[in-house]
Amino acid sequence: MKKSLGAKTLLYPTPVLIVGTYDGEGKANMATVAWGGISCSSPPCVSISLRGATYSFHSIMEREAFTVNIPSEKFAKEVDYVGMASGKNVDKFEVTGLTPVKSDLVDAPYVEEFPLILECKLVHKLELGIHTQFTGEILDVKAVEDVLGERDNPNMEKLQPLVYETGFGTYYGIGERVGKAYQIGKEIGD
Amino acid sequence: MKKSLGAKTLLYPTPVLIVGTYDGEGKANMATVAWGGISCSSPPCVSISLRGATYSFHSIMEREAFTVNIPSEKFAKEVDYVGMASGKNVDKFEVTGLTPVKSDLVDAPYVEEFPLILECKLVHKLELGIHTQFTGEILDVKAVEDVLGERDNPNMEKLQPLVYETGFGTYYGIGERVGKAYQIGKEIGD
Repeated sequence: MKKSLGAKTLLYPTPVLIVGTYDGEGKANMATVAWGGISCSSPPCVSISLRGATYSFHSIMEREAFTVNIPSEKFAKEVDYVGMASGKNVDKFEVTGLTPVKSDLVDAPYVEEFPLILECKLVHKLELGIHTQFTGEILDVKAVEDVLGERDNPNMEKLQPLVYETGFGTYYGIGERVGKAYQIGKEIGD
Repeated sequence: MKKSLGAKTLLYPTPVLIVGTYDGEGKANMATVAWGGISCSSPPCVSISLRGATYSFHSIMEREAFTVNIPSEKFAKEVDYVGMASGKNVDKFEVTGLTPVKSDLVDAPYVEEFPLILECKLVHKLELGIHTQFTGEILDVKAVEDVLGERDNPNMEKLQPLVYETGFGTYYGIGERVGKAYQIGKEIGD
């Protein structure tokens, strides 16, 4: 028997993504986003949602580009600060000591210190209510060598990304390896 | 210095979602989906992406409804099987022994054994390429009492959801609590 919790955004878990943008004057900014995910395999696309009141919203509308940066666990404090402050009032790169790097591919900056970054060109926007969903085509993914495993795939245990608990607003790390996809299910059938 | 990995869907981590649907004849089906996330806070919306070749794709087109079910770690084998088999050929509920429950709110079934479920009415579809993104308004969330913490919020440690490593196709559990959002960042500024 299940208990009704009401119409709420209780998806578990959500990712912890840092969205990089330039504003109209070329000032680099970051936003912490838990509302997002991959939306297409080919062309590769990622969707993120932002409120119209945010500074990043207007930057994406203007530049039609953004980066999605995956911070590792050790940057949790910086990530949380970026989620509280507004680029309207402060230079979040300056305050956190993180370094913006201009993408060669899209009109947006990525975060030098973060291990994995996706460079995205805006292909669709969708106003859903308080949030607008921006879908970007992923033109390239870049990673530091330290986090790569076989066949240059990022390894979850080396990368140590954060996950977000939506109900209480808590950050968690990644736990134990549970099993290989397209393999452990064969015990049930194929 | 970062290494270019090419235009790929390497977002870390992605969630492990089981999408519940009815087909045209009312047969209940499930699909395992890692491409998705929350897309709006108000109205609360969740977006998931499916290939046009899947059985669930056609069911959502027809019924304009779906559920998003969060399995706990102990169901990893069932989850993986559901991601390999097609509802075209088999009854995945029958094979896995999981139980479909008809939602009172939307024209879709949820999974009785899974601890957290979202009942969604289709509000938007977007063809992005090989995948079509379906956005559903969350009409209700239901959970088993065991996974609830204070103020009836699902607790990550009790829920034990899975996360997916996109590069290698591996399931992971949730790790250690890292810190509280809107709090740990205050050390840097506010």
